[in-house]
Amino acid sequence: MQSATGKMINAYVPGRGNLPADQAAMAERRARLLGPAYRLFYETPVHLIRGQGVHLYDADGQAYLDCYNNVASVGHCHPRVIEAMSTQAATLATHTRYLHDGVLTLAERLLALFPPELSHAMFTCTGSEANDLAYRIARAATGGSGVIVTDNAYHGVTLATAGMSMSIGPAVAPGPGVFAIAAPTPANYPEGVASGFAAAVTAACGQMRAQGIRPAMLIVDTVFSSDGVWPDPAGFLADAAAAIRAEGGLFLADEVQPGFGRLGTSMWGFQRHGVVPDMVSLGKPMGNGYPVAGLVIRPEVIAAFGAQSRYFNTFGGNPVSAAAALAVLDVIRDEGLMENAARTGAVFRDSLAGLASDRFGEVRGAGLFIGVDIVQDGQPAPDRAVRLVNLLREERILISATGAQGHILKLRPPLPFSEDNAAQVVETIARLLPRL
Amino acid sequence: MQSATGKMINAYVPGRGNLPADQAAMAERRARLLGPAYRLFYETPVHLIRGQGVHLYDADGQAYLDCYNNVASVGHCHPRVIEAMSTQAATLATHTRYLHDGVLTLAERLLALFPPELSHAMFTCTGSEANDLAYRIARAATGGSGVIVTDNAYHGVTLATAGMSMSIGPAVAPGPGVFAIAAPTPANYPEGVASGFAAAVTAACGQMRAQGIRPAMLIVDTVFSSDGVWPDPAGFLADAAAAIRAEGGLFLADEVQPGFGRLGTSMWGFQRHGVVPDMVSLGKPMGNGYPVAGLVIRPEVIAAFGAQSRYFNTFGGNPVSAAAALAVLDVIRDEGLMENAARTGAVFRDSLAGLASDRFGEVRGAGLFIGVDIVQDGQPAPDRAVRLVNLLREERILISATGAQGHILKLRPPLPFSEDNAAQVVETIARLLPRL
Repeated sequence: MQSATGKMINAYVPGRGNLPADQAAMAERRARLLGPAYRLFYETPVHLIRGQGVHLYDADGQAYLDCYNNVASVGHCHPRVIEAMSTQAATLATHTRYLHDGVLTLAERLLALFPPELSHAMFTCTGSEANDLAYRIARAATGGSGVIVTDNAYHGVTLATAGMSMSIGPAVAPGPGVFAIAAPTPANYPEGVASGFAAAVTAACGQMRAQGIRPAMLIVDTVFSSDGVWPDPAGFLADAAAAIRAEGGLFLADEVQPGFGRLGTSMWGFQRHGVVPDMVSLGKPMGNGYPVAGLVIRPEVIAAFGAQSRYFNTFGGNPVSAAAALAVLDVIRDEGLMENAARTGAVFRDSLAGLASDRFGEVRGAGLFIGVDIVQDGQPAPDRAVRLVNLLREERILISATGAQGHILKLRPPLPFSEDNAAQVVETIARLLPRL
Repeated sequence: MQSATGKMINAYVPGRGNLPADQAAMAERRARLLGPAYRLFYETPVHLIRGQGVHLYDADGQAYLDCYNNVASVGHCHPRVIEAMSTQAATLATHTRYLHDGVLTLAERLLALFPPELSHAMFTCTGSEANDLAYRIARAATGGSGVIVTDNAYHGVTLATAGMSMSIGPAVAPGPGVFAIAAPTPANYPEGVASGFAAAVTAACGQMRAQGIRPAMLIVDTVFSSDGVWPDPAGFLADAAAAIRAEGGLFLADEVQPGFGRLGTSMWGFQRHGVVPDMVSLGKPMGNGYPVAGLVIRPEVIAAFGAQSRYFNTFGGNPVSAAAALAVLDVIRDEGLMENAARTGAVFRDSLAGLASDRFGEVRGAGLFIGVDIVQDGQPAPDRAVRLVNLLREERILISATGAQGHILKLRPPLPFSEDNAAQVVETIARLLPRL
């Protein structure tokens, strides 16, 4: 099962929209220079030139409330992160084949945020590289190559991880050994999400073995972002992790989107499920925009890979990336951003739930990661969802939509988001709903 | 054919060397925190805390002459690059799904440095990601999956590109469809490197087809860095490119190491060979340490991929990466670094050739990319090469060794390297040679 068309939700269609002449020229320049594989957001794309806190600004100085971007997670252009990054970049930017304290301090600070079983950290530049490395490690550890993903998963853009990313659509073939199972929703598993999802893992392993493939790993985004945001009931992932382990495979928690405190009650999504993964991949918000990502791993899992091969990533773990990532951890702690995600997220979700109607369906989420079903006659209404996303853009509020059918609003603001910011979004949606 | 052991050349063996207590503690901390897949350079690793120009500095303020690091290619911590990066990071750091001028200006400036046939640019964070993307594109364009590499190639660390990197050693299996051919050396092709190497490409395509695999691409580092630095005779690659095209495959020039003016007479290594590739991958020196990389490509090559799939790299082409990469292009131009690479490189190579002896063999190279065979009784002498690398480290000059047997010195300094810097290296080597 894959998304029906593979078309990107909320993609700009060149030549349409109400772009002013100078921006239309930019869009044409993009197509000419960057080629046919790049996409812009929105019916009428946004030209942004500045960011600060939870706001982005266009060339006319108009402010957009950012309710979407999870990379600048501690706020756009946070001065502590900029300062740490700039100072280190002016001091030294080499690599991990010389001794340097930065990468070690980062590893220590990061590992202190994980259960003690997960005691090694490795560093890459992107979440794609982290998941790709995890797969290489899983193959060495298990001797298998089979991978289980959910049916609208997104895990990266390398050949191996794009093959695990059903959400890119049918034009990108699943990789050899990749088996997709239905996302953990009550509709897909009416007998119970925990037992049903675990049974699907076991069944997929059976299909693999029937094709002569041994299981290597189950990989899931722990909030199931691209499947439409499915955080509950907390705890349901433990059975699936047990199921893949019973088959000799590993459990990889992809925390690239949910990680770093966004879910409010814990730094990592897997912690809500009472399970300790074999590997955890990290990315997007890790450097608040600086390209840094990584993998946290059990020693017994990396042993086989480490005995066979070395790992070197030219930029991964360099002193500048370490300084940026350390500053992000400092800011999350000192500004209480995880606590804010819990508090503001709860208020935000409650307020959104108050808009419930025949158009505005279930509100799901944890902390500041929120999904809302947009429906018509009880059925998914992707056209309405995309229309709302674009109406909000005209009101200078940035969100997007997700899910295999594209009918689920995705709200995922920078973590310093306030209750006033949330109120602005809710009031604006309330005003726009009759126009869907 | 693979490197005999897959052991990393010049890797630190934990517990050995003459590390002071504080650095020994750092090395132990590394093993505990980062796990078994990380490696340090040198019998006695170096702890560096500062960089400027062509020098790196340790905690005691001792200067090391950098004759190895090609990432900080315009000089360590170049103030123009730092300024451009820091200013943009404090202004905006989003992604390519909003309009922004930075990525477009970078694409324009970059493409102006290429033949007109190569008219699209795509951006990633690492050279690994660029080569991995190129392979995805080549598969879509050709319908094939076969890849030809040289027998000690290095092209990246993702699953797909590690499978193209014979230099990682036999523990990392070649990817499915990857065929290695002998590097373009006179010893391997006594009948002539151009015709011999091209014939090897054709023969590998025949082997592929016999296994039911269609050729997708030939990928080579255009200075054959990890094969031991083989730049001459300039022009020899044209026949190999014609050979892969005659078989329906594409020619990918990996410029991650040779690119950005290092070879002195042209910005890109392929230009020395009078050939226009189908795709060109860029990386390491592109942002002088900031993680930015990319792919330059013919429109007809990306057409099939672009029609099927979109490409999005969260950090790739972000405004900060564009600012850093633009500053690097400015500095290369304004400081005449390509011209310096040609001029200083020629003097450096001539001086090194003057050391010729029964230990110090052939000197090869172009611009500031230099390889020197270290021999004993006319045979490769990897132990002597590693000893010289470590003796130079004690003299605070940083170089390394390369090649399938590890007996070839690799000299690859930042481009502002001066004739005085070169003289210091040559004089020091002359003094150390009797100790090998």
